[in-house]
Amino acid sequence: MTEAQWPARWLREQLSYEARDPALFRAALTHRSATGPNNERLEFLGDAVLNLLIAQALYSAYPEADEGDLSRLRARLVSAEPLAEIALAIGLGEALQLGAGELKTGGFRRQSILADGLEAVCGAIYLDQGLEAVRPVVARLFAGRLAQLPEAQTLKDAKTRLQEHLQARGLRLPAYAVLAVQGEDHAQSFRVSCAVAELKLTTEGEGSSRRRAEQEAAERMLARIEP
Amino acid sequence: MTEAQWPARWLREQLSYEARDPALFRAALTHRSATGPNNERLEFLGDAVLNLLIAQALYSAYPEADEGDLSRLRARLVSAEPLAEIALAIGLGEALQLGAGELKTGGFRRQSILADGLEAVCGAIYLDQGLEAVRPVVARLFAGRLAQLPEAQTLKDAKTRLQEHLQARGLRLPAYAVLAVQGEDHAQSFRVSCAVAELKLTTEGEGSSRRRAEQEAAERMLARIEP
Repeated sequence: MTEAQWPARWLREQLSYEARDPALFRAALTHRSATGPNNERLEFLGDAVLNLLIAQALYSAYPEADEGDLSRLRARLVSAEPLAEIALAIGLGEALQLGAGELKTGGFRRQSILADGLEAVCGAIYLDQGLEAVRPVVARLFAGRLAQLPEAQTLKDAKTRLQEHLQARGLRLPAYAVLAVQGEDHAQSFRVSCAVAELKLTTEGEGSSRRRAEQEAAERMLARIEP
Repeated sequence: MTEAQWPARWLREQLSYEARDPALFRAALTHRSATGPNNERLEFLGDAVLNLLIAQALYSAYPEADEGDLSRLRARLVSAEPLAEIALAIGLGEALQLGAGELKTGGFRRQSILADGLEAVCGAIYLDQGLEAVRPVVARLFAGRLAQLPEAQTLKDAKTRLQEHLQARGLRLPAYAVLAVQGEDHAQSFRVSCAVAELKLTTEGEGSSRRRAEQEAAERMLARIEP
């Protein structure tokens, strides 16, 4: 994309979207390494737009899932990796404007830059024509991933997944320990650690119950050790 | 609220909102300690609704703020404490349906229960009549807080705030250390620690640059030590 152009054709062809305000989309497709208005602020907004639309899709798809399951499913869908894959699939990397340094080092292929760009485009569509204009775009972009979501009954909590992951690698079970309990009787906050001795890793979690704190610690351990 | 009632009058009087689907609002105002559909799932959705509306309000109010500043401002507005205060101010505690145990121990005054209830109400309005129906409600509920936001130029990053906080308490400056650098040249990920020796506290942060990782570690330290 040169500075004089704006990505009307790309939006139309890849997202079936007819943009009204060119400046929004020029900014959405400009990385901060380039000159001119960039996509950092639109990314902030678009992240929230995506979070809501994916939250709602999951809320509808899993009428029995609890909040923890819904959060975990969403985290999988809106993390940098799937976002970057979607961005690549729609040629967002080529539509992005990067500074010379980033261009030379292949920034248009970098995961975070692609993911941020996709979020920024969602933010731009939201400002351009509102939430209901983003909804069909996101539905199409995530159609494959939403269709491949796990069966509701197979959703597992973090402690269970961590245990299974470690067992599959032939490692011993994690050790949980309460580090601190704060607050009064009915507003307590627990801080626990989760240690995987053989990997020399320890994570911590906090929550309003020991169980919740352990789940958080296990979730963080998974984030560390899962590929 | 008795089981036979639903909170039409409360919604009208406190939120100037005319609800269509009573079941949504009955669930939104039912804590999981009570029987029947509760507000956990609506809270998940409402959290995303609030995050988006507050993100947008800040995006407009701070045309020059970067993504980090916007995130920090939002975190202040949508954390449990302000949400619970707003919930209290609109009598959400009395509108909430709680189980007998929670009732006896004053659960209707508990911060997390109030905050979750407010998020759930936002989620219910969103499902009832869409995002544009939540917008004026949130604008009114947050009017005072949005009006009292800091001047844009006084926004400070986490490392600066942590330093000032420690200095105000007469403590020494935090020590940052790089724990690990992963990835190839232009897709590196940094993990750093932030230690406050006199408080015997250490936090960690990750990011695509050392500076970002340090900011995250400082942010977590602030979350630990700020009242």
